[in-house]
Amino acid sequence: MIPPNHPRYRSLLERERLVEGFREGYVVPQGLIAQGRGECFDYLLGEETQQFALEAITAAAAALLLAKHPVISVNGNVAALTPREVVELSEAVPALIEVNLFYRSREREDKIAEVLKRHGAKSVLGVGDDASCTIPELFSERRRVSCEGIYKADVVLVPLEDGDRTQALRRLGKTVIAIDLNPLSRTAQAASITIVDNITRAMPRLVDAVRRMKNASREELENVLKNYDNKRVLASALLHISKRIEELAKNIRES
Amino acid sequence: MIPPNHPRYRSLLERERLVEGFREGYVVPQGLIAQGRGECFDYLLGEETQQFALEAITAAAAALLLAKHPVISVNGNVAALTPREVVELSEAVPALIEVNLFYRSREREDKIAEVLKRHGAKSVLGVGDDASCTIPELFSERRRVSCEGIYKADVVLVPLEDGDRTQALRRLGKTVIAIDLNPLSRTAQAASITIVDNITRAMPRLVDAVRRMKNASREELENVLKNYDNKRVLASALLHISKRIEELAKNIRES
Repeated sequence: MIPPNHPRYRSLLERERLVEGFREGYVVPQGLIAQGRGECFDYLLGEETQQFALEAITAAAAALLLAKHPVISVNGNVAALTPREVVELSEAVPALIEVNLFYRSREREDKIAEVLKRHGAKSVLGVGDDASCTIPELFSERRRVSCEGIYKADVVLVPLEDGDRTQALRRLGKTVIAIDLNPLSRTAQAASITIVDNITRAMPRLVDAVRRMKNASREELENVLKNYDNKRVLASALLHISKRIEELAKNIRES
Repeated sequence: MIPPNHPRYRSLLERERLVEGFREGYVVPQGLIAQGRGECFDYLLGEETQQFALEAITAAAAALLLAKHPVISVNGNVAALTPREVVELSEAVPALIEVNLFYRSREREDKIAEVLKRHGAKSVLGVGDDASCTIPELFSERRRVSCEGIYKADVVLVPLEDGDRTQALRRLGKTVIAIDLNPLSRTAQAASITIVDNITRAMPRLVDAVRRMKNASREELENVLKNYDNKRVLASALLHISKRIEELAKNIRES
């Protein structure tokens, strides 16, 4: 349907995958809107993985490898965009996989678990009665998590998470790794490590980083984390966007 | 449902209106993604109507009032977000209203016409057999327009239009007024007059401008257009966004 030479081919393909997940009933309308917001920020980033993202990916790999109980949180958009990479990452670390939804329903939980299992996942937490522990300070269905998963986790990877939950997980003393194209979002600001990049580019790179750093010593990994400064990384991302927009403005005035 | 003191109240309300239009079957999934992209740019703009938008609104009002055959093009997102303002504008100018869809179906045409009539529209073009003229260079359903509407128009207001169609209308020698939050989009770049603003803020202001300028002489209106420079307006919008992001970056580094 989409010609491969279309200037926005990659972005349109991602959109199609989302719309497909939506038709299958596990992506919600709000997830489509969130994808659109992401597209805009990706465009401003230059649609490439930048240095500040690589730095955050290295720190994220170190945090996952040092963790006692790492968990990967998966929502509808994550399942639509990078199901294979979620499974690969869970095997490489190793880490548990948990379905974690803002708009929770048994049907969506089941469908997302099915997508992940179709891509090789052996076990998926957070489905049905398994999500019976609660995160304090959050309301209704959004507070439910697996007692064996996010509830117990010391490190949680939350690609495409919302701000409230990221803050609540931080207050419980957990290390939170977010993947977020918007360096200004509350999620990006609240996370311990923020990968400002498109999830479809960041996830394969995170899998590679974990495999590469797998044999590093604890000391080396701890050093990576000690030298990591999330505020500096976020500021670099904003400056990058700002410079890019300014250049584009100059080009328009001169054209 | 959404507490009025929520920091993103207005934006969440707009989102709900879109999701409602989607459930009623006249907003398409791609329209939800487009809304998300718009939200991101609106955030970067500061979620307020800026000077460059006011300048474009004044020029747009002049162009509409000078037109021999002005037409307002309406798609699903426009019908969901500003149905009342479309009707008010069509009466104030006066201008024709035409349903014009990227993903055309008789069902969507009918539903959008119904929404507009519910808000007071007396006549709506572009529904069913009325859309039997074609715009050259465009493919399939996207080329269909009303012979009495866009096909004959000298000035077309296309809020939330796509780039291809904007370019095709320009090549036919028409004056195209776009409302687009992204000053870099092909639509924004191709239009004769680009209002870089949220449609929900821009449309009521455009109605006011038309009412206010209604009694101006042709000469005064022509002067407004003669002094208007769309490239300068787009460059101002980009510079504004760029400065705002740079400031936000500074704040993050200093916090």
